[in-house]
Amino acid sequence: MATIQDVARHAQVGAATVSRVLSGNGYVKEETRQRVLKSIDELDYTPNEMARNLFYRKTGIVAVIVPELSHPFFSELVNGIEMALCAAGYQTMICNAFYEENYELRYLDMLKRQVVDGIIFAAHTSVAVERYQSIRRPIVALDRYLGDSIPCLSADHREGGRLAAEELIRAGCRNVVQFGGANETAPSTPFGGEHGWVSTPAVTRHAVFAQVMQEHGVTCHTRSDQWITADFEQYRVAAEAMFRELPDVDGVFATDPFALAVLQTAQELGRRVPQDLRLVSYDGTQMTKLAYPSVTTIVQPIERLAQEAVQMMLDLIQGKELAAQTVTLPVTLRRGASTTV
Amino acid sequence: MATIQDVARHAQVGAATVSRVLSGNGYVKEETRQRVLKSIDELDYTPNEMARNLFYRKTGIVAVIVPELSHPFFSELVNGIEMALCAAGYQTMICNAFYEENYELRYLDMLKRQVVDGIIFAAHTSVAVERYQSIRRPIVALDRYLGDSIPCLSADHREGGRLAAEELIRAGCRNVVQFGGANETAPSTPFGGEHGWVSTPAVTRHAVFAQVMQEHGVTCHTRSDQWITADFEQYRVAAEAMFRELPDVDGVFATDPFALAVLQTAQELGRRVPQDLRLVSYDGTQMTKLAYPSVTTIVQPIERLAQEAVQMMLDLIQGKELAAQTVTLPVTLRRGASTTV
Repeated sequence: MATIQDVARHAQVGAATVSRVLSGNGYVKEETRQRVLKSIDELDYTPNEMARNLFYRKTGIVAVIVPELSHPFFSELVNGIEMALCAAGYQTMICNAFYEENYELRYLDMLKRQVVDGIIFAAHTSVAVERYQSIRRPIVALDRYLGDSIPCLSADHREGGRLAAEELIRAGCRNVVQFGGANETAPSTPFGGEHGWVSTPAVTRHAVFAQVMQEHGVTCHTRSDQWITADFEQYRVAAEAMFRELPDVDGVFATDPFALAVLQTAQELGRRVPQDLRLVSYDGTQMTKLAYPSVTTIVQPIERLAQEAVQMMLDLIQGKELAAQTVTLPVTLRRGASTTV
Repeated sequence: MATIQDVARHAQVGAATVSRVLSGNGYVKEETRQRVLKSIDELDYTPNEMARNLFYRKTGIVAVIVPELSHPFFSELVNGIEMALCAAGYQTMICNAFYEENYELRYLDMLKRQVVDGIIFAAHTSVAVERYQSIRRPIVALDRYLGDSIPCLSADHREGGRLAAEELIRAGCRNVVQFGGANETAPSTPFGGEHGWVSTPAVTRHAVFAQVMQEHGVTCHTRSDQWITADFEQYRVAAEAMFRELPDVDGVFATDPFALAVLQTAQELGRRVPQDLRLVSYDGTQMTKLAYPSVTTIVQPIERLAQEAVQMMLDLIQGKELAAQTVTLPVTLRRGASTTV
């Protein structure tokens, strides 16, 4: 089996020149190019997958943009993305979008200047989607809607909302609260967002949850407190406000850290879980495994989301056609004591 | 006050050329260089701090190497580092060292090839420290010992161990367990590690903890279970084993997720916290704020560690002398219900 070094020796050039010929990047004299192609032909040289990655990529760096890295969902997601990118020979650059107003333009510029080979985008957007549409470079949107030409990957949030609602109904709830991010509920694009807001398939879980509750005649309050913050104490403040304003609530649906804050606050107030209050959390991050009583959780397939996002990115970088522009992965319910009545 | 644009206009060149002259990077004709220097002189132009950063840096990328990004301590640390680097105009590249055997050589090579401007190193090492000593490029070691020539930043773990021990003694403990990572206890370098092991100032807390307990005649077991893992269920398994093997334990000192696993297991076994078991956790990550009962915690100044690491890195990149090769930041005790008897 011929190697790139064999080709280089045969054509009497350096391996870098062979690489430039294969990738089409960088200047190679036409005469030299023909000689290299002839050597490739004569030696029957086929670059392997890994080598092809090396040829086609420009910098070997993929940027990952998340709202906040210290949020458990995003830290586990980026952990998985870094592992998958590393296995493919790529480096991972990260950006905390929550703190940085102009991150999008900065990163889109880096993508255009080819400082990075691609962007996995999992943050809020304040740039018109048209701007994304016009960039003909690899972008994968994770749980975000950036327009038809940008592939979008997410978990099956409709099913997640349905499973959560049905579990609370099964456990006998008649008066429930769901917490949605303040930015998750502005209704104007296909996924319910508008520029400057989170425009994400994740919001569908709230609509489905409310709908299932309505169908069963269960009272459902949707509270739009900010969910994203470096300080978990804000979740506690929101949980306390909920118990104060809605003392008769008997079921709660919220993201993992929020649900744990509700659990803690309930216990401090002397409410028994699950007897007085049933809980379902969303995301299924590791922290939910350490709660007492154990918490029923809708589990997003975080590791698979990470792997799939990277695979889509690698396909885009290599100029392959994606099998689908929209990929939805299944969620599962992991039952704990918080709904076992 | 003259700007770089003023200089460029005055010298009739582009701003990029002025930048090249200032940084000494990239080709500039000698004649042009002289003209730019003359304009700088005539306009009395002084590049400001931010501009100087831009001139002196090569790629604007700093790599951060951690054992595992999804561990709460490291996700909060990298979150802070990314914010501080971003504010200084730098991009953050991350590497999960736990999964990757040859990451060190790969990143040291990237540093040599100037793909990155520096490395903030917070992972285990399997490379002889001499190798680090020989690299004359910016490296900051965070909680890791990489030899005398590499600056080392950490929290005051001696004080952390002492505070934890005194708190458990104050709460009446007579038979305590501390959990140390398996890799944290091999004694051979100044900080108690050897090649292939974690060689970290953090281990000093275990020695001090054990010593204070001994001075007070309290029985102290040190258990060296693996602490680092993507799956919190492993902490539960270790907690269950502890209660099985040491049923008379009345106090535990462990990292945050480990302490929460002990709390959960204790509650499942019907042990009351703090009456039957007192708990002190280490790190003070956000997750400790959501426990019930609330957990007493030794809080590392994670945000300050991040900011200080970045400041040291920026100083090194700009060729400044560091004020100190070893920087130690104070820890604090945050008292919760788990030691309130």
